[in-house]
Amino acid sequence: MNTFLERCQQIVGADFVLTDDAEKLSYVTDYRQRFIGRALAVIKPANTLEVAAIVKLCAEHKVAIVPQGGNTGLVLGSVPDQSGNAIVLSLLRLNQIRAIDAINNTITVDAGCRLTQVQDAATSIQRLFPLSLASEGTCTIGGNLSTNAGGTAVLHYGNCRALCLGLEVVTAQGDIWDGLRGLRKDNTGYDLRDLYIGAEGTLGVITGALFQLFPLPQSQLTALVALNSVADAVALFHLARSNSKDTVLSAFELISSFCLELVGKHFPAIRQPTLAAHPYYVLIELSSQEPEANSVTALENLIELAMEQGIVHDAVLASSLTQSNALWQLRESISSAQAAEGKNIKHDISLPISNIAAFIDATDAQLQKQFSGCRMVTFGHLGDGNLHYNVSAPLNDSHDEFLAQQSAVNRVVYDSVAHFCGSISAEHGLGALKHDEILRYKSPVEMQLMRQIKQALDPHNIMNPGKVVTPF
Amino acid sequence: MNTFLERCQQIVGADFVLTDDAEKLSYVTDYRQRFIGRALAVIKPANTLEVAAIVKLCAEHKVAIVPQGGNTGLVLGSVPDQSGNAIVLSLLRLNQIRAIDAINNTITVDAGCRLTQVQDAATSIQRLFPLSLASEGTCTIGGNLSTNAGGTAVLHYGNCRALCLGLEVVTAQGDIWDGLRGLRKDNTGYDLRDLYIGAEGTLGVITGALFQLFPLPQSQLTALVALNSVADAVALFHLARSNSKDTVLSAFELISSFCLELVGKHFPAIRQPTLAAHPYYVLIELSSQEPEANSVTALENLIELAMEQGIVHDAVLASSLTQSNALWQLRESISSAQAAEGKNIKHDISLPISNIAAFIDATDAQLQKQFSGCRMVTFGHLGDGNLHYNVSAPLNDSHDEFLAQQSAVNRVVYDSVAHFCGSISAEHGLGALKHDEILRYKSPVEMQLMRQIKQALDPHNIMNPGKVVTPF
Repeated sequence: MNTFLERCQQIVGADFVLTDDAEKLSYVTDYRQRFIGRALAVIKPANTLEVAAIVKLCAEHKVAIVPQGGNTGLVLGSVPDQSGNAIVLSLLRLNQIRAIDAINNTITVDAGCRLTQVQDAATSIQRLFPLSLASEGTCTIGGNLSTNAGGTAVLHYGNCRALCLGLEVVTAQGDIWDGLRGLRKDNTGYDLRDLYIGAEGTLGVITGALFQLFPLPQSQLTALVALNSVADAVALFHLARSNSKDTVLSAFELISSFCLELVGKHFPAIRQPTLAAHPYYVLIELSSQEPEANSVTALENLIELAMEQGIVHDAVLASSLTQSNALWQLRESISSAQAAEGKNIKHDISLPISNIAAFIDATDAQLQKQFSGCRMVTFGHLGDGNLHYNVSAPLNDSHDEFLAQQSAVNRVVYDSVAHFCGSISAEHGLGALKHDEILRYKSPVEMQLMRQIKQALDPHNIMNPGKVVTPF
Repeated sequence: MNTFLERCQQIVGADFVLTDDAEKLSYVTDYRQRFIGRALAVIKPANTLEVAAIVKLCAEHKVAIVPQGGNTGLVLGSVPDQSGNAIVLSLLRLNQIRAIDAINNTITVDAGCRLTQVQDAATSIQRLFPLSLASEGTCTIGGNLSTNAGGTAVLHYGNCRALCLGLEVVTAQGDIWDGLRGLRKDNTGYDLRDLYIGAEGTLGVITGALFQLFPLPQSQLTALVALNSVADAVALFHLARSNSKDTVLSAFELISSFCLELVGKHFPAIRQPTLAAHPYYVLIELSSQEPEANSVTALENLIELAMEQGIVHDAVLASSLTQSNALWQLRESISSAQAAEGKNIKHDISLPISNIAAFIDATDAQLQKQFSGCRMVTFGHLGDGNLHYNVSAPLNDSHDEFLAQQSAVNRVVYDSVAHFCGSISAEHGLGALKHDEILRYKSPVEMQLMRQIKQALDPHNIMNPGKVVTPF
């Protein structure tokens, strides 16, 4: 192994082969601090050629590689296991914006660029890079691609996959595939791009990417509305899709009343809008290329129509950007408020929109039956069919005792998700956390196809082993 | 082989195993009538289970399978070679709309449904299925998926890949993968869906699909404008993207003056708009969820701005649906007019939009140098970077003599496409026609990755052999 590390040093320079435990700690520690792995070394190449040389060396020595960006993943996909046999391959030094093409409306970036860096580069030429999520200041675009990140702009712009036109990848053999094509149409063989996107570093290392850019919206307007049920929220979504006219329905977020209650309890400084108490709320956002007056009319008309139809019972319209941001702040404080309330059991799930109301009714009831008094923290991107369906301990119960039942709670929720034709990971991926769980929910045929692909592209299983799928 | 055919008959019934040459003829004949292959038999299963049984039988007997939908492909992807060893597996009897979900805005269909059948099913519940192309009455949705079809709606809605949420596929081993998920977000492993889409039947047989549906536009408005150059057309595209306000720029088609001239010569009954003669024209379409008056204003303002900037020199605005259709008829008659003028050499290519003007200048010049007097029939989906860059024989020259130089003409065009970072197949795929050509333009690393995938999923090379890529 000394020879191996010496050769790593020759490739990237001694300063960029970290072997000291203290230096390695942040790279082997899970973002949510639940897990600390071990690594032979953390290697920090400066560019694609160095990445390729390191991967080639690892292939020769059969050393496992854990590719890592900002290490903000939520499913233990970007940290090594506790064997200490793997290297962490940090992409953070690949952090250049390579090119911006204002005519083709594309941007080419290194995989290690922070998401905000890509957003800012787009804004600098009056374009929008729409991907946006909570960890955007820390996460890297390569990690976003490897997990096919979602976030708040999916409803109109799609997920990370939909934004990407081309990739540069170092294969498990250490070859460089230059697929950085800036084309909207290209039908010349298998879709390798979409195979590496979402593969969580188990098929190769994404080192660069080319994305589409979009016009910047001229105005954005939000409203928070009160409803009696999830079924009404789904009805409102349908109404909004068919009645937002030419404005863009850019967000449609479900928030249960208990979520707002938690925010009020733990963040009393955040002003709550004056809305009659209802079981559910929806945050709607309309975006437009025209002055705000247009969106105001569209949103007022929509809410008036929904009230006439008995779907919406109360509403607050933001009449300024400040008010709009305040409504978003409520939505974005839910996770922190929930954490302040105590540990809880999270589920990042998706469903056909037509099944969401029935899913929540059935699963809430089943959970109450089995875990009496548990408190549902239900919110999420309803317009994408994506729920953060989290379960908090009953009031006054021990959180640790409740957490001991995590597997049983997961089982109820995931079995119900499967029953309602949904997915047990909408945004976060499988990582190591759901590597076994998925075997219960995906068909043997699909798992077999995934193993065949893994085996074909990474026959020695050196790319992020133990994540997503294990070959034969 | 008799045993094999008898077992096929047991699976699908004797009526659906065609072995008579006359009965087989249309299934083994290329859409453009350039090629007639041979087949052991044409097999027409009734449903997915029968498809799976036939594929399993073929795997056992190592019989090659050519999956076929409407057989309207343009690159010899859906017809067998002349060995006579393969079966044609026709999906035409799998022609049911399986389900429509108006709340989830999705439709589930058999692969053998005609494209118009899917469009009509969507329209019947006031939704849009946007995929639209010339052969839509004949082609099937399974073929559209297998070639990742483009067409006229790509600019706003994306290609066939972007519309599809889930697939049902019979693997090369005869297993059924049920991936018919109606989810906007699902990050649970490798993207098998996008691997089968665009694979031209070389990895498995698509038997069913689940698609997104969209709101029907309330109004659509077109204009034909006259310009001096392709560079001005690109400038107009940029202007249109940033100034169409909240209307949707739904088409942006480049048409060279020679194209309109050919339409005028061969279809004198089609009325040509009164426009001053210019080298290029652009057909613009704006779509809207609001009454037409909005789009009229947006389009008038856009054209006025473009005229002020010296980009557009003359324009005709359609003021009714009839006028709008007449402008589209001009565009859609180009291919037939070109055929009426004589045989020609076609190229379905794509480029970064920022390179299109330079590509046309350089390639036109090179072609004139090598094939003096050849006539360029240049048109296509400029907004997608997709050109139909076709070359007709010089006036008075023999078309057959000119066609004999097809390879040399292809070489000039494709080498130039590669130089300007484009693709030699934007919409049509590789099929057998470009199976060898692509080796010149794709990197060995990319071809190797494609071979590894083909080898992994179809180790006996029975799925549409000789198309796209040949394994080791």
